[in-house]
Amino acid sequence: MSNGMGKTMKNGNDRRILLAHGSGGRLTRDLVEQVFSKALANPILDRMDDAAILELEGRLAFTADSHVVSPIFFPGGDIGRLSITGTVNDLAMMGARPLYISAGFIIEEGFPVDDLESIVASMGEAAREAGVEVVAGDTKVVERGAADGVFITTSGIGSIPPGIHVSGSGARPGDTVIISGTVGDHGATVLSKREGIDFDTELKSDCAPLGSLVSDMLAASPNLHVLRDPTRGGVAATLNEIAASSGVDIEIDEGKIPYRAEVRAACELLGLDPLVLANEGKLMAFVPAAGAEPVLEAMRKNRYGGAAAIIGSVKEVESSRPRVYARTILGSRRIISMPTGEQLPRIC
Amino acid sequence: MSNGMGKTMKNGNDRRILLAHGSGGRLTRDLVEQVFSKALANPILDRMDDAAILELEGRLAFTADSHVVSPIFFPGGDIGRLSITGTVNDLAMMGARPLYISAGFIIEEGFPVDDLESIVASMGEAAREAGVEVVAGDTKVVERGAADGVFITTSGIGSIPPGIHVSGSGARPGDTVIISGTVGDHGATVLSKREGIDFDTELKSDCAPLGSLVSDMLAASPNLHVLRDPTRGGVAATLNEIAASSGVDIEIDEGKIPYRAEVRAACELLGLDPLVLANEGKLMAFVPAAGAEPVLEAMRKNRYGGAAAIIGSVKEVESSRPRVYARTILGSRRIISMPTGEQLPRIC
Repeated sequence: MSNGMGKTMKNGNDRRILLAHGSGGRLTRDLVEQVFSKALANPILDRMDDAAILELEGRLAFTADSHVVSPIFFPGGDIGRLSITGTVNDLAMMGARPLYISAGFIIEEGFPVDDLESIVASMGEAAREAGVEVVAGDTKVVERGAADGVFITTSGIGSIPPGIHVSGSGARPGDTVIISGTVGDHGATVLSKREGIDFDTELKSDCAPLGSLVSDMLAASPNLHVLRDPTRGGVAATLNEIAASSGVDIEIDEGKIPYRAEVRAACELLGLDPLVLANEGKLMAFVPAAGAEPVLEAMRKNRYGGAAAIIGSVKEVESSRPRVYARTILGSRRIISMPTGEQLPRIC
Repeated sequence: MSNGMGKTMKNGNDRRILLAHGSGGRLTRDLVEQVFSKALANPILDRMDDAAILELEGRLAFTADSHVVSPIFFPGGDIGRLSITGTVNDLAMMGARPLYISAGFIIEEGFPVDDLESIVASMGEAAREAGVEVVAGDTKVVERGAADGVFITTSGIGSIPPGIHVSGSGARPGDTVIISGTVGDHGATVLSKREGIDFDTELKSDCAPLGSLVSDMLAASPNLHVLRDPTRGGVAATLNEIAASSGVDIEIDEGKIPYRAEVRAACELLGLDPLVLANEGKLMAFVPAAGAEPVLEAMRKNRYGGAAAIIGSVKEVESSRPRVYARTILGSRRIISMPTGEQLPRIC
């Protein structure tokens, strides 16, 4: 029995996913036992029932993220790591402590089993790094050409500590805007890899779980107004969303935004604005001005916030509707609009 | 602003999903507001934060299901209805009251917006029928040819009442095996539709949410040993899983399994064994013999259990490992083995 998958999938050393791995029958069971359970083992998942049983109480955060990144493997991460950090970060942005993850896999027939094993191992590592457990999952296989490799949709549950109220609509005039580190790393990395561009310098995704960073920030000041991770659409989309939800203007100081030199170089080469590039291990915090310094200090001590910087502030709405402005290095001011983004599919 | 999607997607009357609908920018927001929020509106989803906030306590069930059914629309349902009922039923099979759903959409560029609207409307209806709310979601768009239409991964949270302990490993010798209705309806319908076979009689999927059925059964007898919905791999796979997890033999009486005439006809035509066909609105219950009649009676009074029937019982393991047997109409006995299932991809 334990050799079921090996026997059926092996074709020389070239083990491939078959349609029957998604059938609900013997090969599905073998795939679960030999690939998923091995890398993600924990007492809840190991029960293998139709659903995981969790003991929880109080206010919970619940979120979902589908991951379709192309290429599946990129410097600094892969779709597996991303599928954990993406959902962990959505939970953390509500001020929640991320706890449990479910994962639905859609796999293309013929996908290499070795690659799937790498991806699932990477999920296991990211889950340990984030302090979460993958407790439920599902696998479907579609015929060759009906999907592109593998897609992973994760959903997560986190616990929100009493007294914490963070929301995208909480920004208030006078708030200080903080970013946890360099901007555009993930987007620049994936796009460069996709375009086949090699940089001599090390360009890699920032893909990381931010639960501990948020927890340190909340310990420094429980009164955080907004937390958001600038993923798809980048800093530009995130700031525009917050401005609209909160009914405020936001002004950032272009010269204060931290960038890696290699991201700047990639953006110049690819003709991209780094402010619309996805980040997968960064957050933006809106904090009452008085609390900004202690929060910044706490961030810089955390491994995921070493390059944290104050980049702007919140203003009363100036014109007919909320807007985001950048103060340029030359002192002038330009509007940062909501990106239309047609050029950046499958970044996460 | 509110015309954003209409303007950009319209091409005559032929509105199509564009890559930019998955970009995280303006069109993503328009899609969320104009398609998803409209059909699925509820106070939690309407907050539009990175995660939903729920107030819950006690034992929770948590599950995930990816849906890739082909064709997307079939008699009796569509991928939207299926994505709700599939996850609701996984929760119900743990004895949980299904409460909240998250949904991750992966959509192929060029997919008709009208079809997406139908699917999301169908999700909304199924959610109301099941008494659950879709509270979190995500949408990704992949380029033409990188997915087949639309895939939906749902994850669900339910609340398990105190004192309820249902598990796939709970079957005990002497237990009565009950099925909630006719077998094979969903599988036969989807396969017939896919093969382009039209039956004069009405063949349709049984796709339905079973939370209220389980709740009525638990009210009749809280001591249910096992609840399982025989989806992928059908009754054959489900019985084999339960036998293996519980370490028992299971014997069913072939003559007592309820089938619709049109399902029998479809199986004969397509050369299929109805016991390996997926069901999407049926459950199997393993109940101590003394409690079987009250449970059966409660099931028959529920709209989703009208044709419930006792089909077998649990025995001590007879040979070297747990097995499932069918007593045939002629009185002989055959082994029902775990299906390998290569022939039935994308049934759910």
